[in-house]
Amino acid sequence: MPDQLQPLSHNKVFDGWHHQFQHHSQVLGCNMRFAIFLPPQAQNQSVPLLFWLSGLTCTDENFMQKAGAFETAAKLGIAIVAPDTSPRGANVADDDAYDLGQGAGFYLNATQAPWAAHYRMYDYIVEELPNLLSQHFPLNGKFAISGHSMGGHGALMIGLKNPDRFTSISAFAPIVNPSQVPWGQKALSHYLGDNEQDWLAYDSCALLANSHQHLPILIDQGSADPFYSEQLQPEKLISIAEQMSYPIRFRMQPDFDHSYYFIQSFIAEHLHFHHAYLCQ
Amino acid sequence: MPDQLQPLSHNKVFDGWHHQFQHHSQVLGCNMRFAIFLPPQAQNQSVPLLFWLSGLTCTDENFMQKAGAFETAAKLGIAIVAPDTSPRGANVADDDAYDLGQGAGFYLNATQAPWAAHYRMYDYIVEELPNLLSQHFPLNGKFAISGHSMGGHGALMIGLKNPDRFTSISAFAPIVNPSQVPWGQKALSHYLGDNEQDWLAYDSCALLANSHQHLPILIDQGSADPFYSEQLQPEKLISIAEQMSYPIRFRMQPDFDHSYYFIQSFIAEHLHFHHAYLCQ
Repeated sequence: MPDQLQPLSHNKVFDGWHHQFQHHSQVLGCNMRFAIFLPPQAQNQSVPLLFWLSGLTCTDENFMQKAGAFETAAKLGIAIVAPDTSPRGANVADDDAYDLGQGAGFYLNATQAPWAAHYRMYDYIVEELPNLLSQHFPLNGKFAISGHSMGGHGALMIGLKNPDRFTSISAFAPIVNPSQVPWGQKALSHYLGDNEQDWLAYDSCALLANSHQHLPILIDQGSADPFYSEQLQPEKLISIAEQMSYPIRFRMQPDFDHSYYFIQSFIAEHLHFHHAYLCQ
Repeated sequence: MPDQLQPLSHNKVFDGWHHQFQHHSQVLGCNMRFAIFLPPQAQNQSVPLLFWLSGLTCTDENFMQKAGAFETAAKLGIAIVAPDTSPRGANVADDDAYDLGQGAGFYLNATQAPWAAHYRMYDYIVEELPNLLSQHFPLNGKFAISGHSMGGHGALMIGLKNPDRFTSISAFAPIVNPSQVPWGQKALSHYLGDNEQDWLAYDSCALLANSHQHLPILIDQGSADPFYSEQLQPEKLISIAEQMSYPIRFRMQPDFDHSYYFIQSFIAEHLHFHHAYLCQ
């Protein structure tokens, strides 16, 4: 019997539908909300799915309301799921800071108290959520992954660790080297402890340096992003990719910042990029 | 000397720029925020301007963040201004209800205490804001007007009362007959008093019935809009327009609701509609 999904809202948008659901996550030990866009093609055939991982403080709603992705996704026949960014609820550990705890799960499996009890977003995104979605929606098993900022880290890290599960990876302004920048060092030390070797399992620069299988990767970075030089530093990943002859398409986008105005300007190109591999 | 604009934020989006400004409104007697999108053409020529009037509870941000209008506006060379929906501030009268007071200005000039002191959104939108914008931005004097729900009422009402100032009107799910529906009756009685004759100066059905000059009008309504049958009833306006041989293009959009998912699905068509008249 399929796990239960509780519908929360649904909206017609372009030729498809946006839905929000709540479900109980066994992996996270709490109720979770996610949103899914189903293109019109899903009414009579199975479709590929793009995972969108959002950034710090976001829920399922930020991308769905602000990215302007649905006209292109409807045309290309791509479903999009937007999970939440952490476990949620009164019983889930949290912190007053915006960059730790609820809204800041960093898409990893925590090992340290008080986080280890619920913060298992890696297993949720890689295992539980795809299984749940495959039970309930007409998906053809082709998955791509994308995200923004902390979610760009999530997309790169999860894609690099699971090259057989995803056709392609893209990211907007990703954290590529969390073990070496303040946002990442704070999160990794709290969630994983002080042994920095343990952090490398979730660091895209380290993962890329040890990768043997190449996935198509597209990264966009705004030149006016206030987090660019301290927290993001995409050149670190690009430099390793060049040494490895790992083909990454990296684009510095002049004058764009870290906001959804940046994302909405290029999301259609990311969807076309993924479409080429999802529908090969 | 031009009135002062205080810049609050700016974002590159597609080939244009989104800006937020604060200024002191003489008409409203308070500080006001607005947002403006400038297309790339504004860098070396003057451009036409679409006024976007938002619905209940909104600020300048809802449309700019959620409507997905900028790709098309950038291509067509149309600037878009999104004013706030009422006067704002601790000294401005308010009400606990979402449909009266701040966020619910109904784009009229109030005559009743405690509202009359600040609630003069009609004069703000028709006089003060266009003058301010013309001082600061490269506008060519061609204005169109559009809006959603309460802002659809505002767009129709202001356009019908000022056919020489606007080339064209469009609306999403507008309140067309506020004197006869609960949202409108509540607002009009508080802002204008109990003489229902006074309400007709702001009622699009009454204005259309007495109009002698025809503007192009486009109206979209979602069939799954929960406010459709009680608060909106666009057929009332369409019926009067047919009697008057006033050409209104009215489209019932199956399954769409009252949200920005509806607006983002058709905003490009509204921009093309206005473009045809703004650039004649």
